[in-house]
Amino acid sequence: MPRVVVDVVLKPEISDPQGQAVLGALGRLGHPGVTSVRQGKHFVLEVEGTPDAAELRQIAETLLANPVIEDVELHLPSD
Amino acid sequence: MPRVVVDVVLKPEISDPQGQAVLGALGRLGHPGVTSVRQGKHFVLEVEGTPDAAELRQIAETLLANPVIEDVELHLPSD
Repeated sequence: MPRVVVDVVLKPEISDPQGQAVLGALGRLGHPGVTSVRQGKHFVLEVEGTPDAAELRQIAETLLANPVIEDVELHLPSD
Repeated sequence: MPRVVVDVVLKPEISDPQGQAVLGALGRLGHPGVTSVRQGKHFVLEVEGTPDAAELRQIAETLLANPVIEDVELHLPSD
């Protein structure tokens, strides 16, 4: 069954306290080489038949993400 | 600056109430073609210099994920 991956990330101008907390922990735990961490969501959808790119983009942009603060990266099976 | 992406997904045998809720909502909202939704986490790390694959794998598997219930997909810049 075709798998579609949707990554939802905060827009660059939106602050990310979760990512900042992870970044601080990495520094304290001996990984100073990591200079930025941003945390988002990762959805894996299984769809019946051939994925409809337009429908999936609409699902991703309107139902899985908040378009006010988040951007969407859609990965169709052909990617 | 090199970007490293870490996707953290629940192991297949672990139930995913968030994904199930999204799946139910998609069905009610007129998208019956989606048959499964699994929700995970998506981290974007920026690292100084050349990414150290072994260090990043260790960070991903021990600090970003819970290895008891989650699997990790590491995407280095060369991927």
